[in-house]
Amino acid sequence: MKKFMDENFLLTTETAQKLYHEYAEVMPILDYHCHLNPQEIYEDRKYENITQVWLGGDHYKWRQMRSNGVEERFVTGDASDREKFQKWAETLEMAIGNPLYHWSHLELKQYFGYEGYLNGETAEEVWNLCNEKLAQDSMTARNLIRQSNVTLVCTTDDPVDSLEWHAKIAADENFDVQVLPTWRPDKAMYLEKPDYLTYLGKLEAVSGVKIDSFAALIEALKIRMDFFAAHGCCISDHGLAYVAYVPASAEEVEAVFAKRLSGEAVTASEEAKFKTAFMIAMGREYNKKGWAMQIHYGVKRDNNQRLFKQVGPDAGVDCIATSAPASELADFLCALDITNELPKTILYSLNPIDNAAIGTIIGCFQNDSAVGKIQHGSGWWFNDNKTGMIDQMVSLANLGLLGNFVGMLTDSRSFLSYTRHEYFRRILCELVGGWVENGEYPADWKTLEKIVKGISYNNAVRYFGFDL
Amino acid sequence: MKKFMDENFLLTTETAQKLYHEYAEVMPILDYHCHLNPQEIYEDRKYENITQVWLGGDHYKWRQMRSNGVEERFVTGDASDREKFQKWAETLEMAIGNPLYHWSHLELKQYFGYEGYLNGETAEEVWNLCNEKLAQDSMTARNLIRQSNVTLVCTTDDPVDSLEWHAKIAADENFDVQVLPTWRPDKAMYLEKPDYLTYLGKLEAVSGVKIDSFAALIEALKIRMDFFAAHGCCISDHGLAYVAYVPASAEEVEAVFAKRLSGEAVTASEEAKFKTAFMIAMGREYNKKGWAMQIHYGVKRDNNQRLFKQVGPDAGVDCIATSAPASELADFLCALDITNELPKTILYSLNPIDNAAIGTIIGCFQNDSAVGKIQHGSGWWFNDNKTGMIDQMVSLANLGLLGNFVGMLTDSRSFLSYTRHEYFRRILCELVGGWVENGEYPADWKTLEKIVKGISYNNAVRYFGFDL
Amino acid sequence: MKKFMDENFLLTTETAQKLYHEYAEVMPILDYHCHLNPQEIYEDRKYENITQVWLGGDHYKWRQMRSNGVEERFVTGDASDREKFQKWAETLEMAIGNPLYHWSHLELKQYFGYEGYLNGETAEEVWNLCNEKLAQDSMTARNLIRQSNVTLVCTTDDPVDSLEWHAKIAADENFDVQVLPTWRPDKAMYLEKPDYLTYLGKLEAVSGVKIDSFAALIEALKIRMDFFAAHGCCISDHGLAYVAYVPASAEEVEAVFAKRLSGEAVTASEEAKFKTAFMIAMGREYNKKGWAMQIHYGVKRDNNQRLFKQVGPDAGVDCIATSAPASELADFLCALDITNELPKTILYSLNPIDNAAIGTIIGCFQNDSAVGKIQHGSGWWFNDNKTGMIDQMVSLANLGLLGNFVGMLTDSRSFLSYTRHEYFRRILCELVGGWVENGEYPADWKTLEKIVKGISYNNAVRYFGFDL
Repeated sequence: MKKFMDENFLLTTETAQKLYHEYAEVMPILDYHCHLNPQEIYEDRKYENITQVWLGGDHYKWRQMRSNGVEERFVTGDASDREKFQKWAETLEMAIGNPLYHWSHLELKQYFGYEGYLNGETAEEVWNLCNEKLAQDSMTARNLIRQSNVTLVCTTDDPVDSLEWHAKIAADENFDVQVLPTWRPDKAMYLEKPDYLTYLGKLEAVSGVKIDSFAALIEALKIRMDFFAAHGCCISDHGLAYVAYVPASAEEVEAVFAKRLSGEAVTASEEAKFKTAFMIAMGREYNKKGWAMQIHYGVKRDNNQRLFKQVGPDAGVDCIATSAPASELADFLCALDITNELPKTILYSLNPIDNAAIGTIIGCFQNDSAVGKIQHGSGWWFNDNKTGMIDQMVSLANLGLLGNFVGMLTDSRSFLSYTRHEYFRRILCELVGGWVENGEYPADWKTLEKIVKGISYNNAVRYFGFDL
Repeated sequence: MKKFMDENFLLTTETAQKLYHEYAEVMPILDYHCHLNPQEIYEDRKYENITQVWLGGDHYKWRQMRSNGVEERFVTGDASDREKFQKWAETLEMAIGNPLYHWSHLELKQYFGYEGYLNGETAEEVWNLCNEKLAQDSMTARNLIRQSNVTLVCTTDDPVDSLEWHAKIAADENFDVQVLPTWRPDKAMYLEKPDYLTYLGKLEAVSGVKIDSFAALIEALKIRMDFFAAHGCCISDHGLAYVAYVPASAEEVEAVFAKRLSGEAVTASEEAKFKTAFMIAMGREYNKKGWAMQIHYGVKRDNNQRLFKQVGPDAGVDCIATSAPASELADFLCALDITNELPKTILYSLNPIDNAAIGTIIGCFQNDSAVGKIQHGSGWWFNDNKTGMIDQMVSLANLGLLGNFVGMLTDSRSFLSYTRHEYFRRILCELVGGWVENGEYPADWKTLEKIVKGISYNNAVRYFGFDL
Repeated sequence: MKKFMDENFLLTTETAQKLYHEYAEVMPILDYHCHLNPQEIYEDRKYENITQVWLGGDHYKWRQMRSNGVEERFVTGDASDREKFQKWAETLEMAIGNPLYHWSHLELKQYFGYEGYLNGETAEEVWNLCNEKLAQDSMTARNLIRQSNVTLVCTTDDPVDSLEWHAKIAADENFDVQVLPTWRPDKAMYLEKPDYLTYLGKLEAVSGVKIDSFAALIEALKIRMDFFAAHGCCISDHGLAYVAYVPASAEEVEAVFAKRLSGEAVTASEEAKFKTAFMIAMGREYNKKGWAMQIHYGVKRDNNQRLFKQVGPDAGVDCIATSAPASELADFLCALDITNELPKTILYSLNPIDNAAIGTIIGCFQNDSAVGKIQHGSGWWFNDNKTGMIDQMVSLANLGLLGNFVGMLTDSRSFLSYTRHEYFRRILCELVGGWVENGEYPADWKTLEKIVKGISYNNAVRYFGFDL
């Protein structure tokens, strides 16, 4: 029996161990997609206790606590932090096979030096240990980033954001990790939302453009994109239920937008036409700027309306949306490519059964404008677990070039989540090492080093073109 | 090489073997969903030969025989029982990798003491051995249940059923295994069927309610639910092509029902509205009564119409239906939850690609009204095999709390099918044991015992609230 | 560590090795579906260099080169063959885990005796070695087929084809491998294509039938089917986005066809009705003739329109189509079966998530007219890799009789692709051997021999009824 989560955790062969310890473990982290709060980085936030870090905003954990029959007041309610921690510890032991079990213990080990396992009985010991440790200077936001060997962080930001904290961090000579904004213009696209016009008002204010037409909307966004670019942004991100492709004439799109501006609701078909035009306009601009376009799709949000009303968005009540036609995704990419305006693109679906379709679609649009130009994004959210990562990488290997994969990101709100990169790299090395051990790839260490270091770090640096 | 199906069948590690033999194997069986005939239990049926037991109604086996090019007269026709058994034996050897290969040999071993393997050549020997054994008193329906260490059986019953056999079994002091009815009101919901009005007539007769409106239909069903409850029922079951959610006003639903009552056919859209209202009404009542709601969906029945006309329903000509939008399932659950009337729910899809979507949906509706309130049901029907079970459990572990899983059921018409629990528990222990051996979960035997015994038996007892 | 791709490549257990070397490896190859050019066989084509063989028409490789950022001129353009080979060699090393890595090295080993591995550095050595070898007489088209131990090849042919090269090969006493045509009438069905009427003109010319109605179209095709049958054809093949079933009256279908004949475009609904009628008419005729019907579905072609315009069809820009309702497929098969006119049928979906649905559908229509009458085709195109093959075989084993599977085909345009049969057989033996090693199937060598030899070769001979 292997020891519980020791230095060779998830690495069952000598080759896997060598690949991990010699090539993967030593590489820095490039976190090209996360939800960290730049203000907390600038202000170098400290935490009073482990509940604040772990349960403050982590809806992954909230879901599990509710699955264990825990009352909401211990989840997001007014119970004490110590009580909440106890409930979480009791929940965790039932989470056998769940990535939270591994992430939590990787974090306890790496950041708190705890080698045991957390459950209802050890909760008190772990509570005390963690909180003692959190009081130390080494555990501030910045120091957690530093000790995780992170070279660059991309946050996720709205077009109307002032980026003031990014600017302050950039100007701060005491912190040399780059913290760059990512352009996420979802609110400018979700015209079906009740507060859409309010949002447009904010966009008018920051852009100085009167948004009285679709063309003006795009104009305002371009101004903001220049502003983002000036702050180092080179990545965009979109969250979609699915990638629609319902082309319409410029007149039709203007008519839909005018209808919405007048306060009227739009139909599902009008919505699809508007969103198609929006995404095409954005894609062309990304291509012009050399930005990468990330598309996260396959989500249905806020399903538990009772809890949503009580807790708000990101309450842990989202699920997979199963209706994502591959044909529209392919046609959307073609519509950008036909004029040679398809930017570098990373596709993530929340539905793991989309893996094969994505793998075949990306292969249609590769060309010499970038190595691995169209990427199949790493196992995302509900797929960010051992089987999800293996499935995504095996699918990519079957259908494309795994060697050019840009690899892992944290997608997290927590400064402790860098262990997810460790988790990913162990799984990568186990997979690749297994192939070598099984005679499916030669023990060509030079190439294996290139592949493993590439997927761990170097490919992302090359792909996004960061200046490190 | 491991011996063929020995005591450590499917258990490849020491940990898996320990988990199985010490924790799983010793637990009783709670068969909370099956299709056993209560009359056969009451009358303590005996069987003349193994063909009666194995091939009398088992459409799983019929399909395989046809796949082997066997004439229908040897499958469901008038060939002799000995001839039919021969054809089955010859078929079985081609079924490498199929669960029937394992189930059949587990049954031969456990109930008949046969340690060899069945094929065309050994058929005569097995035929004689089994039939000799079946003549013994130990092989009656009741004794098969007893020797399988079953504490409780839930059959599947129509609202118009008299439950007379359940009552007789309950009153019989010579049989202390509980045999409870399960409420399955499909026939009251399938208003598109030609014999719907005939069925309503039966329901009127047993309920004493004149069913002249949708409200009256629900009223009649409530009366029958009380009757079922009085006989110990605490579980419902629904069979659906997919879970629809097309809300409509009470007036609209009444109009659809009135149209159908008048003998007219309803449209697909009207059907969806009616079924939505029906399921909502049922769900609310289950919640009131503390019943669990089982939903089995993703089936397209009676595809081979030529064979259906010859053999009737359950002829082995059903398949997976692939159109089951996750969004409607999530919205249906929300519609019950929004008024805090969502009962305990178990979701089973016949389509294994729905696993991830189900796993994310159940996580949205968990709360403190029950531990593991919304369950992802075990691998069902076509998924009731090694990979199907592993996929379901790994998906559940990735997305929720495997530790709270209510585990296996037989879903069977045969008294020999209790070996399916053995099969399931071996697979469970191999999976969990593999994680422990691989250092992915600590060798914390106390918790492992709780998890394995829980999934094998205890969780279901707690979940359904049986009085054992 | 196992040696890289040695004689026990992919065979990790003794049982797997025994099964492969004693039973699988020795069997001939029956290539019942490929895209070889019969003229090249008749003329016994020779190749000047390895680039001609490998990169001349292989869009699998083209996709990978583009994924590696290679300029199109090195892929399908005017760069020299040596330059193209260099780019391919550099691409290959990134293709870890990809079947092309294995196929390429199996071909290098088997046909060129090269035991190393190909990358940018070894490209020169491999280029020289291969080209030297290709100059030898042993490397002509016919000799490659002979040394691969192929007994029969089925090409893929249009109804208007003269089959002159098939006739010449049949008449040639110096080549005793049968080369039979396969009936692929897609162009007669794709009435939505702009050049449909031109195609009908050709069909009129070769059939002598004036195609002024749907009935006449079918009549013309029947005449051509007789012609194909006279040349030994006994298999058909269809390529579909999905299997539609939208029944319509003969009058409706005639009206749709008349509309198209008049030069008008047809609607999507009309198209579906026409295609349904077309497929039903074809299926009935296949049944009459005892032909097998292959249906390949789930493809969306020519997605990258820019590259399509530059390179033409089969440019490597096709992807999976995800919208294939299982219900229509089942209803289509039922529509043929209801009159007892369903031919032997092999179903292949490009979407691997269809595996389970297919497995359940084929089980509905099996009968005694053939052993394994309705087949789940082997992992096709994008699924023709290790995991794809395992998934297809495990799914088939779970849901049907793996023992009756007709096994592998090449689906290739290259005379070197027979190593795909080796790849498949190794994976088959590893799978079956694993079950035996794990005690899941007895070490009954007689039956295992029957199963392995059957899937490798004998089942296909029996199924198609070839005269060998």
